[in-house]
Amino acid sequence: MMEIPFTKMHGLGNNYIYINLFEFNLEERHFSRLAQAVSDVHTGVGSDGLILIHPTDEADVGMRIFNRDGSEGKNCGNGLRCVAKFAYENGIVKKDTFKIETRANTVEAKVRADAGAVSEITVNMGQPLLKRSSIPMVGEEATNVVAEPFPVGDLELSLTAVSMGNPHAVFSVDAIKDAPVYQLGPVIEQDERFPEGVNVEFIEIISPTEINFRVWERGSGVTQACGTGACASAVAAVLNGKAERDQDITVHLEGGDLNIKWDTNGDVWMTGGAEVIASGTFNYRI
Amino acid sequence: MMEIPFTKMHGLGNNYIYINLFEFNLEERHFSRLAQAVSDVHTGVGSDGLILIHPTDEADVGMRIFNRDGSEGKNCGNGLRCVAKFAYENGIVKKDTFKIETRANTVEAKVRADAGAVSEITVNMGQPLLKRSSIPMVGEEATNVVAEPFPVGDLELSLTAVSMGNPHAVFSVDAIKDAPVYQLGPVIEQDERFPEGVNVEFIEIISPTEINFRVWERGSGVTQACGTGACASAVAAVLNGKAERDQDITVHLEGGDLNIKWDTNGDVWMTGGAEVIASGTFNYRI
Repeated sequence: MMEIPFTKMHGLGNNYIYINLFEFNLEERHFSRLAQAVSDVHTGVGSDGLILIHPTDEADVGMRIFNRDGSEGKNCGNGLRCVAKFAYENGIVKKDTFKIETRANTVEAKVRADAGAVSEITVNMGQPLLKRSSIPMVGEEATNVVAEPFPVGDLELSLTAVSMGNPHAVFSVDAIKDAPVYQLGPVIEQDERFPEGVNVEFIEIISPTEINFRVWERGSGVTQACGTGACASAVAAVLNGKAERDQDITVHLEGGDLNIKWDTNGDVWMTGGAEVIASGTFNYRI
Repeated sequence: MMEIPFTKMHGLGNNYIYINLFEFNLEERHFSRLAQAVSDVHTGVGSDGLILIHPTDEADVGMRIFNRDGSEGKNCGNGLRCVAKFAYENGIVKKDTFKIETRANTVEAKVRADAGAVSEITVNMGQPLLKRSSIPMVGEEATNVVAEPFPVGDLELSLTAVSMGNPHAVFSVDAIKDAPVYQLGPVIEQDERFPEGVNVEFIEIISPTEINFRVWERGSGVTQACGTGACASAVAAVLNGKAERDQDITVHLEGGDLNIKWDTNGDVWMTGGAEVIASGTFNYRI
């Protein structure tokens, strides 16, 4: 048995077990199976997966994500905020703006801290990809997909499609509570016009700075929060002339709020919280 | 915020957060809400509920169980084994046979320990109640319910009913893998012949000392393990002449094995393991 020090954190309910490889040595061969063991709520701690915080030459801190099923993920907006908070509060980084390496790319993070405690984290989620072929979506590749008629069964929806490294189909609704997330989410996710599937977002644009949001995540169904989905929704609102570049847009997700800004350089910035749930030692039966 | 020391343990996958009130002071008014907070896998640790281990005048150690929804439970066989292990390994009790008070009754527990580590725990689960009115089940109250014809739709099943403080309907099948747990479990649970509902067990009696077991738990559906169900099944096997009093019967549950003995004094003894998953500090936001 191996005793492994861990911290459990969540961002808007999206929860992972964090292990600090700056202080604890764990061999690569354990990562996938440990993710499965620690994530199982019956015989482990219980989580969406495992995030390893590790030294790297490419940035101030590195992170690797392993899903509950042991597969490796590339990136996770809620996880990035937690890593930023953890790195700052545990002295891995000593400045309030720093770089985090993920398997997908290297990301700039900024923390707002008071007496060593981080209350809010901003991360650069990168530039949205808007060309049809980048979503990816079938059809004429060089065009954007903004307020495009999108028939689903007898319904005629209006689609705006955005890639934040993963594909998003955003639909505006009059009232978020009536959004057909459960009815249309699984249908659109698998629609053949999206060859890699798609995350499905329904948004109610309350004002140029405020959006209500619900999501059907590709492969997961309805979730409480999807960081890239919130980014895609704010971008979609701007593309449709309902919001402004370089301005904070508050997105109300079921798990809590995120502030999204699409700056004039093209980068999308996400600001939100992160919470430390518990810390301790996990008894890993090898 | 309150920092609360905890241990997460499981018995056959039935998992609780344990708090040692011999060492940590927590007021009664927090119990129910803390159970909900710590059990939520998104924003808490994640568990089936909370078990408080506390001093008592009536026994060597007391336990109170709060379910994930904040309601208080009376007893839990898998939880009893965990409490016994915790009490012994943490020096709350200094002997290997001792008494645990629950909200339902006071129970004798025995641990098998090696160098301070408990490998196996035996607990006295009390005497089964067999009269029809004790199950409770409708009909002539003074009779037992053993191999009684029990029609369900077009099927004619053979029912043996046992109360272990909670009601159990036990049905013998030829092969456990074909047991109609999902089809008949929810139907029989709600059958009007059981005015308080019933736990539904399907058993395959392999030999007089070995039973395969699957369960549909009242209020929970299919679970990996039900301690009182394993006891009821061994009692049912004896009542049907397929097993002996005062002899260990190994019950194979989906979460692991339990040994059950119905002794000649009438008490049912359950022997099985318990595991410490993790220990640490929970950040409770009041």
